Amino acid sequence: MAGMDLRPLLQDNGSKIILYVWDGLGGIGAGPEGKTELQAARTPNADRLASQGTCGLLEPVYPGVTPGSGPGHLGLFGYDPVEYQIGRGALEAVGVGFDFRPGDVAARLNFCTLDSKGAIKDRRAGRIPTDESKRVVARLAEAVKEVDGVEVLWAPVKEHRALLVLRGEGLGDGLEDTDPQKEGVPPLEVRAASGAKANVQTAKTVQKVLAKAMKAIADEKKANGILARGFAKRPQWPSFQERFGLHAAVAAGTPMYRGVARLVGMDALEATNEIANDVASVAAAWEGYDFFFLHYKHTDKAGEDGDFDAKVHYIEEADSAIPALEKLGPAVLIVTADHSTPSAMKAHSWHPVPVLLAAETARRDGLSEFNEIACLRGGLGLRPSTHLMPLALAHAGRLAKFGA
Amino acid sequence: MAGMDLRPLLQDNGSKIILYVWDGLGGIGAGPEGKTELQAARTPNADRLASQGTCGLLEPVYPGVTPGSGPGHLGLFGYDPVEYQIGRGALEAVGVGFDFRPGDVAARLNFCTLDSKGAIKDRRAGRIPTDESKRVVARLAEAVKEVDGVEVLWAPVKEHRALLVLRGEGLGDGLEDTDPQKEGVPPLEVRAASGAKANVQTAKTVQKVLAKAMKAIADEKKANGILARGFAKRPQWPSFQERFGLHAAVAAGTPMYRGVARLVGMDALEATNEIANDVASVAAAWEGYDFFFLHYKHTDKAGEDGDFDAKVHYIEEADSAIPALEKLGPAVLIVTADHSTPSAMKAHSWHPVPVLLAAETARRDGLSEFNEIACLRGGLGLRPSTHLMPLALAHAGRLAKFGA
Repeated sequence: MAGMDLRPLLQDNGSKIILYVWDGLGGIGAGPEGKTELQAARTPNADRLASQGTCGLLEPVYPGVTPGSGPGHLGLFGYDPVEYQIGRGALEAVGVGFDFRPGDVAARLNFCTLDSKGAIKDRRAGRIPTDESKRVVARLAEAVKEVDGVEVLWAPVKEHRALLVLRGEGLGDGLEDTDPQKEGVPPLEVRAASGAKANVQTAKTVQKVLAKAMKAIADEKKANGILARGFAKRPQWPSFQERFGLHAAVAAGTPMYRGVARLVGMDALEATNEIANDVASVAAAWEGYDFFFLHYKHTDKAGEDGDFDAKVHYIEEADSAIPALEKLGPAVLIVTADHSTPSAMKAHSWHPVPVLLAAETARRDGLSEFNEIACLRGGLGLRPSTHLMPLALAHAGRLAKFGA
Repeated sequence: MAGMDLRPLLQDNGSKIILYVWDGLGGIGAGPEGKTELQAARTPNADRLASQGTCGLLEPVYPGVTPGSGPGHLGLFGYDPVEYQIGRGALEAVGVGFDFRPGDVAARLNFCTLDSKGAIKDRRAGRIPTDESKRVVARLAEAVKEVDGVEVLWAPVKEHRALLVLRGEGLGDGLEDTDPQKEGVPPLEVRAASGAKANVQTAKTVQKVLAKAMKAIADEKKANGILARGFAKRPQWPSFQERFGLHAAVAAGTPMYRGVARLVGMDALEATNEIANDVASVAAAWEGYDFFFLHYKHTDKAGEDGDFDAKVHYIEEADSAIPALEKLGPAVLIVTADHSTPSAMKAHSWHPVPVLLAAETARRDGLSEFNEIACLRGGLGLRPSTHLMPLALAHAGRLAKFGA
């Protein structure tokens, strides 16, 4: 279901909203003491806000469905992730700040190491540092600029990752990945996912592009091969501004999160994944926007590493930034997550994420702590994450009465 | 909403799921002590699982809608009962293990007692025992084998109930019941529910079938009349295997529940409604399946009888079977119900049913008992029963991440 169209109700009262996402925040409490990371952490600021605001739990995509980073955030932004699907290449392109235009086709590249027979020895090329990757990408950009009349663009991302963008008329993005997902075999040929002419033609072009590219870097010790994944065009979605009447900015140090925010039309602020820096970015841009999406990455990383204590530590660090955000005077300050990443599972999970919404208009629900279990008794209940944006707008006084 | 298509996310990790249904489990606590049957019962095993797993409440069909046995189970199986509707005749046919083929039309029959003027004296023929019913069905099978070129098949069910199946070309199942739902009047004529030719033609044939049949058993003392209900074809639905990637089996001693499970493609195991026997059936088939639906009937019967104490007793019996199920080592063990049957109401009801999901990946929600009231604070919240299957798959590690 696409949800209710809120546009007729929107009113601009000049109020501001901060969405502060602690990536992968949710846990499952499967450890010996049965606590989640958030329960174990000291979060005096979030606890205080919980006692003044209202809490609950958000289900990111669909019951039982574990979200990737894109869908997890889209839900928080009010875009049903099942309806608004996006390829990894497109997300990456927008994420690195690439001038990704309608009609372009992007793919995410992983440099890999090939042996003398062309079989994959290391799918991540020894996770070469970003600087080395930049050097190799520069070689590619020099060697492969145009194939079959299609412009070929290359950009470094991080470590062994890079971006390929094709620009031309009538390109198709229905192409399959060339990553065989295992070592000891060569990269796959580029195949069209359907018989559509645009796909078939583009597959041929990409095959030539990759062959030419690998020839150009054949003398590299580590990054002498390329795997391409997630071919995609830029989706054409109604913007955050159109849907919610909010001029929005993102402060996220990681390209992926910046990318998904830009896909809905948010402006990217300078960000480094140092929370004090990123909060300062929000503060510096305060007058220019209605809505700020501030992303805190380290909690997710610790969860994926299976490091309970580190996740607790980073939750506490994220909490410590709250007073600086309050000082800016937002009408609504939200703390939540894009998905759970329980350290016991070392991976994203489907478990609902805790949400805290602080606003003068919030109904006090009697909670005095912010965690997954307390939130079960919170005033927002358990609901799809797509409900968050309407609630944020309402608490900010930005939604007029419906009906006479 | 039809729900999210999970097929692209399915992954087979060899894990197993048990769905243990305590039929009619939910109560309303309307008695003097204000307890539900489940609150009053001693359920040490379910309570222990609740403390290790996660709980909640499921709404079977739609808020306020009281489910019959078919819809109640379909929701648990992940088939929206409003979307997947099925006639009682079809359910009965599959339930008794009848070779019910696409195109066949089935009806559920009740033997009744007619007086000398042909009016109904007893709508259930004194609830004649199954053996007597079998004898009468054998007479019918001998007397009425074909009408209007349509093959006519008969099967006994239980007590005064039987099954009629028509097999032929172009049959319609849009036929109205012949049961007037009261005594002192004759059975109704068979009427087509619409003017569609297949229905009109089939109505004529069935009228002849029933007339011929009642003539053949006119000398019976009790079962000398027939009431036909729920004319239906076998629905053609996507199977449980197709939708969820699970090879599934049912252990249910009552034909109705076996029937609904078979309609979604589950294999029927031997079952007798003796819980130790039915658990042993599951154990014996353990290696052959991914998913087991184990049905416990007696709780519902006690509720319908308005017998609070008996329902408590049977809940305790159902609970006692849990350790044997745990010993099999399922990744996910679910205890729940198809609907509530409060003994105070002596009938099925619409009240949400408690659900308990035990799995290593379950978020501990701090509950230490399993009942309708404790479950209000459970981690699964209150949700439609169609959410159960996605959650079961997720907790079993059978759903891959959605999106990048």
